[in-house]
Amino acid sequence: MKELNELILESYSDLIDSRLEVLLEGREKPVQELTDAMRYSTMIGGKRIRPVLVLEFCRVCGGDPEQALAFACALEMIHTSSLIHDDLPCMDNDDLRRGQPSCHKKFGEPAALLAGDALEAFAFETAAAADLRPKLVLEAVRLLAQATGPYGMLGGQILDTENEKLPAVDVARLEATHRKKTGALIRAACVLGCIAAGASEEQKRAADDYGAALGMAFQIRDDILDVTGQEQLLGKPVGSDAEEEKPTYVTLLGLEEAARQAERYTEEAFLALDRFEETGFLEDLTRWLLEREH
Amino acid sequence: MKELNELILESYSDLIDSRLEVLLEGREKPVQELTDAMRYSTMIGGKRIRPVLVLEFCRVCGGDPEQALAFACALEMIHTSSLIHDDLPCMDNDDLRRGQPSCHKKFGEPAALLAGDALEAFAFETAAAADLRPKLVLEAVRLLAQATGPYGMLGGQILDTENEKLPAVDVARLEATHRKKTGALIRAACVLGCIAAGASEEQKRAADDYGAALGMAFQIRDDILDVTGQEQLLGKPVGSDAEEEKPTYVTLLGLEEAARQAERYTEEAFLALDRFEETGFLEDLTRWLLEREH
Repeated sequence: MKELNELILESYSDLIDSRLEVLLEGREKPVQELTDAMRYSTMIGGKRIRPVLVLEFCRVCGGDPEQALAFACALEMIHTSSLIHDDLPCMDNDDLRRGQPSCHKKFGEPAALLAGDALEAFAFETAAAADLRPKLVLEAVRLLAQATGPYGMLGGQILDTENEKLPAVDVARLEATHRKKTGALIRAACVLGCIAAGASEEQKRAADDYGAALGMAFQIRDDILDVTGQEQLLGKPVGSDAEEEKPTYVTLLGLEEAARQAERYTEEAFLALDRFEETGFLEDLTRWLLEREH
Repeated sequence: MKELNELILESYSDLIDSRLEVLLEGREKPVQELTDAMRYSTMIGGKRIRPVLVLEFCRVCGGDPEQALAFACALEMIHTSSLIHDDLPCMDNDDLRRGQPSCHKKFGEPAALLAGDALEAFAFETAAAADLRPKLVLEAVRLLAQATGPYGMLGGQILDTENEKLPAVDVARLEATHRKKTGALIRAACVLGCIAAGASEEQKRAADDYGAALGMAFQIRDDILDVTGQEQLLGKPVGSDAEEEKPTYVTLLGLEEAARQAERYTEEAFLALDRFEETGFLEDLTRWLLEREH
């Protein structure tokens, strides 16, 4: 079972990577610095969790995963855009991303700033060009924009920025932060797959519930790994959050309670999957994501 | 004639400003810092040239300008997003924008970075929510994304950034820069208005030609005003480009030849208007933009 899943995961990743390669091929020599920076940060690796969720939710709703490929790539571009801007000196000031120089370390700050901006625009161009009924494509574009904007991921990032300046952050505030910062795009991934398959409103709601629970479990695991993980596996200094006194589930609740919360959200995620058929891969993926060591 | 136009211009601006106010009203208290920064920079003023062009091209193609209002606001948000990021310390490092503190001076760098990102996403959300046939809305979203992305405005910004580092910049390179940096959004403005009105391909092409010529004339006038303008009228230090040895039409061609080129592009713009009826306001607007003293 484990082996089969890795094969599916790999075939999805290949599908996503090769489409991203084509989309991000520089088309104009004069702006090559910009397109190089966009491609560098997008192709640098990562687990492609979000786009894989898009494709698999399309499949479990009865669609062909390739129908959802434009949405999957668009979402990964938005995610990459946020990572590039997150690494900038005025934000987290990270020199490394996935063990490689971060975008501004390799291309300079202006190019990194513009590459993040351009990936965001290019994501919407990509999503809007999906070969599906216009009504479905528009629904997807709207969802993607909402998940990205001030009440989605970017809202979460401002909360995260402010948290560092607050005298104290409680669990409710931290949860609100993560529900937007990490959760918004993961939820959008699941629902985008449903939209591509022309799924029912009920299925979209269940996919949204699954994404919300997975996002929370994933974020708490991330906080835990920041403490327990190994530097070379993560590709970034371990304990960097704690050094900056950044509030996390672990600093607020302790390792044990954080692990319990992650478990609770994991159960919620599995419950939401009951609304779909053939969820073997999604179940294994969920376990794999939440039992990862890096 | 002059007075009538100012009335039309004002009524368009009012329409745009009041819709922007509604759209940018903060809807969630926790992320208010972000929505405040987005609104501050968008409502700080400016001539609203791009959104006015959207509305007026919709009208000259036989549509009701209000049909195009969502596209007009979306385009102004993209424009504002680029100004916020342009002012950041790693870019132009401008403390003032339209005589007021620039976004990062008022809200800090992280909030300004995120506000620019969020305005970009919100622009696509706004455009995608336009109450028109899905096929037209999708066409508009795609155009807006292309005009913004790596081969549009943001491509122009990377060229502009690189120009400062090159030993020499010729007029061809400067033109390529401006065609993207300023031109892309102005062209998109004109064509978006046509799309909202359900105009023909021929009209869209003529609107595109007009926008391209206007954009060039406008940019050259901007270079001229940087030398001849008055500080308090512009709201930014006069001659700031020259101090940084930034190549402009004036530094490359001299004032007189730059003015001649502006004139040539102005004529091209007027020529493109021949394809439309009732272009009195557009003609006056063109003259007004290109004869402005600030």
